[in-house]
Amino acid sequence: MFSVTCVAPVNIALIKYWGKRHEELILPVNDSISMTLSTDELCAKTTVTASESFERNRMWLNGEEVPFEEGSRLQRCLKEVHRLAVASGSQKVPPTWKLHIASVNNFPTAAGLASSAAGYACLVYSLSRLYDIPLSEELTTVARQGSGSACRSLYGGFVQWHRGALDDGSDSVARQIAASDHWPNMHVLILVVNDARKKTASTRGMQQAVKTSQLIKHRVDQVVPDRITRLREAIASHDFQAFAEITMKDSNQFHAVALDTYPPCVYMNDVSHRIVSFVHDYNDRMGSYHAAYTFDAGPNACLYVLAEHVPHLLSAIQKVFPNDLADGDTYLRGLPIPKEQDAECSKLDSLDVHAKNAFRYIIHTKVGEGPRELSADNSLLINGLPLE
Amino acid sequence: MFSVTCVAPVNIALIKYWGKRHEELILPVNDSISMTLSTDELCAKTTVTASESFERNRMWLNGEEVPFEEGSRLQRCLKEVHRLAVASGSQKVPPTWKLHIASVNNFPTAAGLASSAAGYACLVYSLSRLYDIPLSEELTTVARQGSGSACRSLYGGFVQWHRGALDDGSDSVARQIAASDHWPNMHVLILVVNDARKKTASTRGMQQAVKTSQLIKHRVDQVVPDRITRLREAIASHDFQAFAEITMKDSNQFHAVALDTYPPCVYMNDVSHRIVSFVHDYNDRMGSYHAAYTFDAGPNACLYVLAEHVPHLLSAIQKVFPNDLADGDTYLRGLPIPKEQDAECSKLDSLDVHAKNAFRYIIHTKVGEGPRELSADNSLLINGLPLE
Repeated sequence: MFSVTCVAPVNIALIKYWGKRHEELILPVNDSISMTLSTDELCAKTTVTASESFERNRMWLNGEEVPFEEGSRLQRCLKEVHRLAVASGSQKVPPTWKLHIASVNNFPTAAGLASSAAGYACLVYSLSRLYDIPLSEELTTVARQGSGSACRSLYGGFVQWHRGALDDGSDSVARQIAASDHWPNMHVLILVVNDARKKTASTRGMQQAVKTSQLIKHRVDQVVPDRITRLREAIASHDFQAFAEITMKDSNQFHAVALDTYPPCVYMNDVSHRIVSFVHDYNDRMGSYHAAYTFDAGPNACLYVLAEHVPHLLSAIQKVFPNDLADGDTYLRGLPIPKEQDAECSKLDSLDVHAKNAFRYIIHTKVGEGPRELSADNSLLINGLPLE
Repeated sequence: MFSVTCVAPVNIALIKYWGKRHEELILPVNDSISMTLSTDELCAKTTVTASESFERNRMWLNGEEVPFEEGSRLQRCLKEVHRLAVASGSQKVPPTWKLHIASVNNFPTAAGLASSAAGYACLVYSLSRLYDIPLSEELTTVARQGSGSACRSLYGGFVQWHRGALDDGSDSVARQIAASDHWPNMHVLILVVNDARKKTASTRGMQQAVKTSQLIKHRVDQVVPDRITRLREAIASHDFQAFAEITMKDSNQFHAVALDTYPPCVYMNDVSHRIVSFVHDYNDRMGSYHAAYTFDAGPNACLYVLAEHVPHLLSAIQKVFPNDLADGDTYLRGLPIPKEQDAECSKLDSLDVHAKNAFRYIIHTKVGEGPRELSADNSLLINGLPLE
């Protein structure tokens, strides 16, 4: 019996992936760039156990057994990993042995964060450790076939997912742009918004966008390539001003394309838009960009902010979005935040205050590293079955 | 002393005007098409009095005197009308006589309807009656210089405002596509939404869109021309299906461009988006388009619906958007609505009900005619001064 346990990070796109050019291979219509978040605050954790005695492949997701279906994305990833194992000559674990897999997220799905990206990255990374396959560009194409943006979660720091040109998708790979220690003071506040609406699943939203939006083609051909170049430069030179502007514009344009889809897809709500106008007001008062928002296919905001500006930004957030839970320890989660010294609070005096309790909680985290293997005592499986 | 009193209609764009190619002359970046609403429910009303004894030009708007400034849009319209009066040889009223002007809207500004379009159309039409100038394409260029979309309110029925190509704007005119009796059963429900947000003024929103949106150019060059052609065909052939789809798509795209503006402009709110998804659900259940939404630079919905479908659509609205005022006579305004015969109510059973009191009220109106002169007993001025 062989077993490995790994964690893999969440990543948040700065230049958004939206729209596929091939549904099954999950090939995107444009390049995207993301930042990987620290696994200390948010991660997926997966144990893969192989045994000669297992009769069939089984999987447990957040404690519930899920079907391991023929033709599923899960099967496809496993088959691709087996192919790489054979190609690399790895013989540690016989590919005929069945697997038991358990995976959990350490963050509530209510956070609306892309759990499938971290989950598939963790699965593929764990399989690669089990079969002793090195991390490579080719491995990112395997994660990509589980969930598109999962390929970006195989690296830490800043990562570009290349669209690629080939029909078989072999050049649609993720590559690291800069490691997590390149810009270590890049922090993130995730504002988890109260919301009860039904929303369009992102797979369907993307399909409809490619089919019906008249603006998406212009975005893909004329807008994204230039933004990719400029964001890479901003990251390379630690230029927060350019980083912030490109990030905010690309978030807005992604939601514009979703709205130009027919019927329209709406992911942001009134609170999301209130956060947008707050960030612009706040930056205006500070005289330069101190914060940048981005929104994925949901109402929650992800704010990028340099470590030294976190306390002041949080003071402003607490002022504009007052919360009954603000002093409780379930409201502010993640990295601790030093008390603000009140130095520039007068700049915040005229900010409009929003209605109470717009957020469920706030997570404070930062740029982080890629997946890593944990010691055996972290296993989610004992003798191939989940811990109770 | 000479005096005329006129009313002019509100118009609602089906293909949206958004973005100017010349700020002062108010020349648009694309053609637009609108439907004129009946003045029975919504109108501006203006009295213009000219007298040798008036010492200066004065104006009252909804009862409040407003400055008549040199270089204002008001002055510009007056100067242009004088030019047309001279050109047409009209000598009824000497152009040296000063004017007193009073104008009112019969609908609350809270309705968020484009009051300036009706207002400037009414002003320019009233001046044309005073100076005995015929209604002409050239007159629409005068109204356009007061408020862009005012040029469309000089005609009834369906109207196209042509972008034009000339620098002086002389070919940026409104022309009637079809008179109001061409499609007389085209009705409208205006859902006036509760909203308290600050919003970007549309003049500024347009400027910023042209300056910063990367998608607007594609809309203007590649999308609108084809939609104009197809909407004209739909109107000509009374094709409600095509009419509805083009109208909804263009509303969505206008708001997509506003969102792609930097900083983004957001005019629809959560209730607006709830109306959008309701209309799509409703049409799905009916098996074809029975209603089409459009949203201007605000959260209120304008729903196009054929007269025979109004009662059923209203039943569905009342079911999905329950209102404590629903039985009061201030809630349903405008044209009376026959009671629904419950015939197809089962189709509505599974519609999700929204929270109560999302709307302030609903206005029921229909396609209508252009401006017209009223008899003297409708005057807003007595001896040149407003009625108290």
